[in-house]
Amino acid sequence: MSWQDKLRKVDPYIAGEQPRIQNLIKLNTNENPYDPGEKVKDAIKQFDSSQLSLYPRPDADELRKALAQYHHLNENQVFIGNGSDEVLALIFLTCFNGKEPVLFPDISYSFYPVYCKLYQIPYHQIPLNNHFEIVCSDYYQPNSGIIFPNPNAPTGMCVSLEMIEDILKHNLESIVVIDEAYIDFGGQTAVPLIQKYPNLLITQTFSKYRSLAGIRLGVALGSQEVIARLYDVKNSFNSYPIDRLAQVIGLASMEDSDYIQENAQKIIKTRMYTQKALKDLGFEMTDSKANFIFVKHPHYDAQKLFQQLRERGILVRYFPQPRIDQYLRITIGTQTQMETLVQQIKDILQA
Amino acid sequence: MSWQDKLRKVDPYIAGEQPRIQNLIKLNTNENPYDPGEKVKDAIKQFDSSQLSLYPRPDADELRKALAQYHHLNENQVFIGNGSDEVLALIFLTCFNGKEPVLFPDISYSFYPVYCKLYQIPYHQIPLNNHFEIVCSDYYQPNSGIIFPNPNAPTGMCVSLEMIEDILKHNLESIVVIDEAYIDFGGQTAVPLIQKYPNLLITQTFSKYRSLAGIRLGVALGSQEVIARLYDVKNSFNSYPIDRLAQVIGLASMEDSDYIQENAQKIIKTRMYTQKALKDLGFEMTDSKANFIFVKHPHYDAQKLFQQLRERGILVRYFPQPRIDQYLRITIGTQTQMETLVQQIKDILQA
Repeated sequence: MSWQDKLRKVDPYIAGEQPRIQNLIKLNTNENPYDPGEKVKDAIKQFDSSQLSLYPRPDADELRKALAQYHHLNENQVFIGNGSDEVLALIFLTCFNGKEPVLFPDISYSFYPVYCKLYQIPYHQIPLNNHFEIVCSDYYQPNSGIIFPNPNAPTGMCVSLEMIEDILKHNLESIVVIDEAYIDFGGQTAVPLIQKYPNLLITQTFSKYRSLAGIRLGVALGSQEVIARLYDVKNSFNSYPIDRLAQVIGLASMEDSDYIQENAQKIIKTRMYTQKALKDLGFEMTDSKANFIFVKHPHYDAQKLFQQLRERGILVRYFPQPRIDQYLRITIGTQTQMETLVQQIKDILQA
Repeated sequence: MSWQDKLRKVDPYIAGEQPRIQNLIKLNTNENPYDPGEKVKDAIKQFDSSQLSLYPRPDADELRKALAQYHHLNENQVFIGNGSDEVLALIFLTCFNGKEPVLFPDISYSFYPVYCKLYQIPYHQIPLNNHFEIVCSDYYQPNSGIIFPNPNAPTGMCVSLEMIEDILKHNLESIVVIDEAYIDFGGQTAVPLIQKYPNLLITQTFSKYRSLAGIRLGVALGSQEVIARLYDVKNSFNSYPIDRLAQVIGLASMEDSDYIQENAQKIIKTRMYTQKALKDLGFEMTDSKANFIFVKHPHYDAQKLFQQLRERGILVRYFPQPRIDQYLRITIGTQTQMETLVQQIKDILQA
């Protein structure tokens, strides 16, 4: 057996492009168009760099405390990782160790099957119905775990808490993970269900709502028992995943709630504007409650539109994937950016 | 099968204490006593926080380029992770997928068996000889990979490049990992061997030599083929592990080589002072080329000394572990800190 044969072979996740082109209107990776705020800015300016010679707090405990308070949970019900992708990876490794497949929708965050392949976890992708909806009864089958985003990506569509509770009630023997990366743009969080269901795990992120994609902070919320196991695995992987600046910046963001909530309201308002403007141009779309929309034009090829927008300096996301290859996912930017987008699409359709 | 049965059970690594006590002389986790320097300080002060709303460069490519230049390698021979613990964890997952055990010394970085247990990799710990030396021929046996630190931890002892090459020549069918976390305090790096041995992988860190334990930057250096596989696994785990500030800070540190080299020289000088002073007090010790020493007193119990130093506000590391439970590992701090340590030990021994 050669050393090459001992290397793990995987099909890695392909993230949205991060081009270096200047003056691009970047609407392809669901970043928040507003800056993270004055408190974050001040925290960085005031940071004493000599502290960096020392290891950070291993579990980011001050940030943990702040998150617990924010969510009305105990500190030991909060897990913090290096971005929610890391949190999800550690959840797959920690929680999905049965023999049955893990269940998630066919149209969903495309990192889920990648984690399964990485850790050799069997999985089964359950088709959304023709309206891109999750059907609860599809999840009444033996499994090693269930995961889906709410709102779903890339559709932006929400399920109700009643539906989540229905799935939980039918799956008391598995961990059910609700990936709430986009919950703060109009969805309803399932956090209150944690007290009732110790097998419910919720992930959130600082990347979208808090405009901190650049600092890498992800969160899991759940019962003390599951969170403790996640920390055991984390401590078998990396003792100090969250650096000192990230801890300080995360805390500063937690103290700037009004500003961040105002930005989310602006994004929601701009989403409504964009939805209406594109409907007026003949687009069809899902009912998105996220900071992106998922649209298709009945008479205009999605990949072609994607290309033409790119040529005009606007980057959106196209997925060359069954069922959704006539859709574009468009992040909600500032009002001005979205007015430019609408104008450019109008020009393209007229040409 | 309950949801509890589906959770992975592990024995996590226990890192050195990070107490919150003020005015402690902290010599227990091998941090650098000098601050990371003016360039790092300026980089933080000048950082534009509005950038944090955007994802970082996924592979930290500018930092990769700087590291490649520094080590006279190509960019595609450099991997960057969130601290060298993450780099090591990803190496175990990526590189050690044979059926034979992975080999490493019995006295070594105690995270190695933890990674093996996490990923269910068989391993075999090979005893160092009675002088705590690695014996090359012990590694002439079937294996799925080999890893050891050079200098070794917690002994601080180095093997020669000839010995490393001997082990490589006898193991052309496995990845051989040299963990060079402490190489810059007097050891000789094996980086030049990379061009000759595509199965050699070297890890380094910004935590010790560059005084950046607080920012979490670890590095792997090796052949293009192995590095590409590591990135595939990294991209199946976390797209953006290195945050924007960490990338900027790492780069700033790379530009401050003279200052950092001066600090290393100070640490080496202080190590020599401490070694001599403790020998004068009757201590025995290994020939450490790291930023710590590994000492025992023939007539004074190590755990008792550890406790008494702690009561006097000095924290060192004690390992309650076969063969080394009469040793203390003491990080080299500033000259003043080490003079205080020597004085306190003198007092304890006289009492």
